[in-house]
Amino acid sequence: MKAVRFTVPGAPPIVENVPIPQPGPGQVVVKIGGAGVCHSDLHVLDHGAPGFHGPFTLGHENAGWVASLGAGVTGWKLGDPVAVYGFWGCGHCHACLLSMESYCENAEHLSNNGGGIGTDGGMAEYMLVPSPRLLVPLGSLAPRDAAPLTDAALTPYHAIKRGLHLLTPDATAVVIGVGGLGHMAVQLLRVLCGARVVAVDLDDRKLDHARQLGADLVVNSRNAAEAAETINAFTGRRKAAMVLDFVGIQPTLDLAVQLVGRNSQLTVVGVGGGTIPLTQWTLPFGCSVSTPLWGSRAELMEVIALAESGRIHVDTHYFGFEQGPQVLQDLRDGKVMGRGVLVPELL
Amino acid sequence: MKAVRFTVPGAPPIVENVPIPQPGPGQVVVKIGGAGVCHSDLHVLDHGAPGFHGPFTLGHENAGWVASLGAGVTGWKLGDPVAVYGFWGCGHCHACLLSMESYCENAEHLSNNGGGIGTDGGMAEYMLVPSPRLLVPLGSLAPRDAAPLTDAALTPYHAIKRGLHLLTPDATAVVIGVGGLGHMAVQLLRVLCGARVVAVDLDDRKLDHARQLGADLVVNSRNAAEAAETINAFTGRRKAAMVLDFVGIQPTLDLAVQLVGRNSQLTVVGVGGGTIPLTQWTLPFGCSVSTPLWGSRAELMEVIALAESGRIHVDTHYFGFEQGPQVLQDLRDGKVMGRGVLVPELL
Amino acid sequence: MKAVRFTVPGAPPIVENVPIPQPGPGQVVVKIGGAGVCHSDLHVLDHGAPGFHGPFTLGHENAGWVASLGAGVTGWKLGDPVAVYGFWGCGHCHACLLSMESYCENAEHLSNNGGGIGTDGGMAEYMLVPSPRLLVPLGSLAPRDAAPLTDAALTPYHAIKRGLHLLTPDATAVVIGVGGLGHMAVQLLRVLCGARVVAVDLDDRKLDHARQLGADLVVNSRNAAEAAETINAFTGRRKAAMVLDFVGIQPTLDLAVQLVGRNSQLTVVGVGGGTIPLTQWTLPFGCSVSTPLWGSRAELMEVIALAESGRIHVDTHYFGFEQGPQVLQDLRDGKVMGRGVLVPELL
Amino acid sequence: MKAVRFTVPGAPPIVENVPIPQPGPGQVVVKIGGAGVCHSDLHVLDHGAPGFHGPFTLGHENAGWVASLGAGVTGWKLGDPVAVYGFWGCGHCHACLLSMESYCENAEHLSNNGGGIGTDGGMAEYMLVPSPRLLVPLGSLAPRDAAPLTDAALTPYHAIKRGLHLLTPDATAVVIGVGGLGHMAVQLLRVLCGARVVAVDLDDRKLDHARQLGADLVVNSRNAAEAAETINAFTGRRKAAMVLDFVGIQPTLDLAVQLVGRNSQLTVVGVGGGTIPLTQWTLPFGCSVSTPLWGSRAELMEVIALAESGRIHVDTHYFGFEQGPQVLQDLRDGKVMGRGVLVPELL
Repeated sequence: MKAVRFTVPGAPPIVENVPIPQPGPGQVVVKIGGAGVCHSDLHVLDHGAPGFHGPFTLGHENAGWVASLGAGVTGWKLGDPVAVYGFWGCGHCHACLLSMESYCENAEHLSNNGGGIGTDGGMAEYMLVPSPRLLVPLGSLAPRDAAPLTDAALTPYHAIKRGLHLLTPDATAVVIGVGGLGHMAVQLLRVLCGARVVAVDLDDRKLDHARQLGADLVVNSRNAAEAAETINAFTGRRKAAMVLDFVGIQPTLDLAVQLVGRNSQLTVVGVGGGTIPLTQWTLPFGCSVSTPLWGSRAELMEVIALAESGRIHVDTHYFGFEQGPQVLQDLRDGKVMGRGVLVPELL
Repeated sequence: MKAVRFTVPGAPPIVENVPIPQPGPGQVVVKIGGAGVCHSDLHVLDHGAPGFHGPFTLGHENAGWVASLGAGVTGWKLGDPVAVYGFWGCGHCHACLLSMESYCENAEHLSNNGGGIGTDGGMAEYMLVPSPRLLVPLGSLAPRDAAPLTDAALTPYHAIKRGLHLLTPDATAVVIGVGGLGHMAVQLLRVLCGARVVAVDLDDRKLDHARQLGADLVVNSRNAAEAAETINAFTGRRKAAMVLDFVGIQPTLDLAVQLVGRNSQLTVVGVGGGTIPLTQWTLPFGCSVSTPLWGSRAELMEVIALAESGRIHVDTHYFGFEQGPQVLQDLRDGKVMGRGVLVPELL
Repeated sequence: MKAVRFTVPGAPPIVENVPIPQPGPGQVVVKIGGAGVCHSDLHVLDHGAPGFHGPFTLGHENAGWVASLGAGVTGWKLGDPVAVYGFWGCGHCHACLLSMESYCENAEHLSNNGGGIGTDGGMAEYMLVPSPRLLVPLGSLAPRDAAPLTDAALTPYHAIKRGLHLLTPDATAVVIGVGGLGHMAVQLLRVLCGARVVAVDLDDRKLDHARQLGADLVVNSRNAAEAAETINAFTGRRKAAMVLDFVGIQPTLDLAVQLVGRNSQLTVVGVGGGTIPLTQWTLPFGCSVSTPLWGSRAELMEVIALAESGRIHVDTHYFGFEQGPQVLQDLRDGKVMGRGVLVPELL
Repeated sequence: MKAVRFTVPGAPPIVENVPIPQPGPGQVVVKIGGAGVCHSDLHVLDHGAPGFHGPFTLGHENAGWVASLGAGVTGWKLGDPVAVYGFWGCGHCHACLLSMESYCENAEHLSNNGGGIGTDGGMAEYMLVPSPRLLVPLGSLAPRDAAPLTDAALTPYHAIKRGLHLLTPDATAVVIGVGGLGHMAVQLLRVLCGARVVAVDLDDRKLDHARQLGADLVVNSRNAAEAAETINAFTGRRKAAMVLDFVGIQPTLDLAVQLVGRNSQLTVVGVGGGTIPLTQWTLPFGCSVSTPLWGSRAELMEVIALAESGRIHVDTHYFGFEQGPQVLQDLRDGKVMGRGVLVPELL
């Protein structure tokens, strides 16, 4: 079968033929319906997956159908449409028991961190999943539409849920960066709570999109000082209860710090490399700063339910696997709108 | 000034002239903009307020403007539009410190439980409020629109918030009774979480209304067995995570028991007099049954924010104080649609 | 190997030889170190496990060592000391993803509800466990000491955790029934929160034990009216924030209802057959009544950590499997102190 | 009456005679039983209270008895023993409604932030409290013992409670700095949860004290690398779920960063001036860093309950007001053990 592969850090992705995987006892093979293309794939291409050697098939946003079941696997049958949970923890620690595998306490001691992150992922016709616990049922969703939910929707969903108790209807949440994850965050905030939503970006088209998705206020941060003033006028003395920065460069972090109120959350998802020099009085009292990672399997089930009921929608664009390297390059060049998804049918 | 008054249990309400109240030190007088007419008023008319003697002015759903400030009151100025929080606790116990005055531990030892419940309420031109802590700012809302929020919206809001952690997007909430509180519950569920919402009533017009307000499924419970089957088919093996019964008669409680799943909440708000004989195995394991009361001052602030942003809306109808006795009778006769609000301007 | 077996409802347990189980793919066989003897075993003996046919080996409180691993099982090695989680859910639903298998939405559609509850349990030298997800590591604890933790400690732990937010240091929790589960509840309350603890029983020796375990007040409920008065004097107007009834007969439920305050929890664990006729005004406003079941795998890990650090202790007495039927009869006759544990070494 | 006063930033405190305050309407005068001496007083002496002018009486850790009630104050009577809540918010915002006045959204726009922080505090025979909402009943505690609870116990209590859900019994909390607040934190952790407690300090006597108060492991951080290694060996791959730094200098923050695990909390209470340069990958994924402030009035009620039941104990030393300036200087010089409390009786 054809697969889009990582070889060594810094090398471009290649498309090559690899054998179709067979499930061992307790394993499952999934026929891929779609594999989302994510900025993290660029990070893997440039730096590898820390501690893991290539080559391996890329793709950590995957969904498809159960294609073959290893000995001893129960509870699933051939053809079941499934999402593949992306972070593969030890399965035995306290975090994994709660399905929060991205916070697995053994994460730094495993042979991989998931398909496409140190071992074969989903940019291929078939994908080996080491345990059925990593599958989440899709219901009526088409796998190629659902694939991006496993990261582009799950990651902001988890980030929001960490502070959902703060998002009372008299509070405000600010989304910085209305890209693949940010445009999901705006939708998720509107459906998960009654708080007001502010969206910030440099691109007016993305801000228009955010407004259509339900943002109460959209602000272009071209002039950062003005943007801060506009948002702080909107939120009043309470300021923002949550700021989600999906960019994470120095200017966005500097803006975020000006927006948060007391007893709030400043959540950095974007890996833009900026720094918040955290001291007493840098931030309002009680503001929690964190960099969460992905989400839990239970949360993925919740995200899928939202998509199935039509309350959230990923703006997907489909490409064949042969186009994978080009789509990755386009993503690097900022040319991809919404979420690119590789699908075998277009091969 | 004119006021709609309770005299003795069982007697009809009367409209009579009473003196305009003056604020003592630490007190506030509010010029009433609107006073909601509630089923609880009928309960007071029939039975009195337990432990308290009449006569007193009715009306526990009140909003207006600060009209005069007693000595020592700070933080408010004349003309501020305010909602009057309805349950007046001791102000000093643990529950009151968290603004949950309806759970005041001294509730049964106070001289009244709020304006209209043992002491003068808001069905008059002016109302004495014993402490400024009982006022919540209205922002841009008109008092006569906001008055019903203090009970008809706050009560379901609190009931929902008690189980909000259960209302993940893959869960279902069922609202039984789409009346004054129930039609708010449907709206609140849609804005506060991603769960699916089912509405149940005997009146198809109310079910149409529920569907317009966002219910995913509406079911007429004329045939209770069929209604249970329809809802359980919709919710699947998980069944409902929350059932809110705003009626509380035996048939609705019997229905509710059939709908809840494990680790759920069955919340009875309606005072219909039905009984759930709770034993092991009556209800699914982990289902919590409770009869909450009203909500907190902080929650009232949150409800007001929702109304101000237009995310919830009470269907209000305005009447003058002279019409108060007739509106109360119409309510008793089931003739009132939405929420009746008495307003002085129509006098 | 020898095993203590259920045959048909109403028949006494028998000890007979059965084959040593072999693990299929994805399964694990555990060499039993201890199997706790529980009142629920009497329920199984009398009524069977609902929907399941005998014969099967009894015992749902099990711990031991990994004895053999089926194909494809990773993360465990021979000899690892483990507790066996008792309720076996579907493993795929939302509740199971959070390791809350006792609230599995498919619980009523499975071929068994755990070893000793419809299929072979742990009152034998070896026990087949269908998935490694059901094992929790024991650390330094001896399996025969740890076995009762899986139910006698886990069940009250879960019941307490459901209301832990209510158990602030100014609140009071009441434990009714200081038996196998109740004596763990007293210890758990002392270690998990700063609330005051009241213990209630008919047996003064058990009350002495409760006092030694940290109860702030112990009350004999021989005279129920006096007991209620004493406890309500101790808790004051706030009354109890949590009442845990480990008996569940009519007199204890009647007592419980008199003790709870507003916004509290009344949790019925004991299957004594009593009834609370829940209507508006039966219970204080906001009091949640529920009958929880067992606990989660993550909670079992937490309970084991408490035992390992010495903060809780089960009062265990060891017996050989041949003595199993006699111990069960003694339990029925109220002659067992603490928790009886069957251990193979005494065979 | 005599009072210990701040005059201008940088000047030493003075003891001078000032008039006994009289309560206006809605106000209360408290006869002081004790006023704790805190490092924050040194901060006020050096820098003033930001935005407020002196002179004013120092002392923000106060308890005593109700001495006179202004017009309109209800619910209190002369002689009631009370703690004075230290941070005085607006009383009207969402945070204040929940009694979290230290997160008041108007905090930066008020005429003071509490007695001793911009207006007259408790280092005097009498103290004016602007509203009875700021009083919390002491029960049977002596005011001079209770005074330090309002800060030295309330501040760590609040910091712990923010992350109490993380402190399951299989988790570990680390306290850095076993001084006035840290020695309370060790006690509070032991009473509020089942987690293991590690205490870190440079002073072996303080570590001995921590061990007596219940720490499971005490570590001298003289050699920071060894200390980190020792603690990480104790916590294992999970690492610490919570690190509370009561020092906040660069070496303690650097240590803290090495100890926290994924999905944890790093809470900085000490104002030592160190910096955590927060970027992606500085800290484990999901670790929340924050600098909380003080605690709520409801939490103060909870802390007082713990002290009243004897579960926590402040190590207090009493001094007369005349000794105030010397005690403040001794505190600056690191000569004060436990908590110094100024008491009028020793005048």
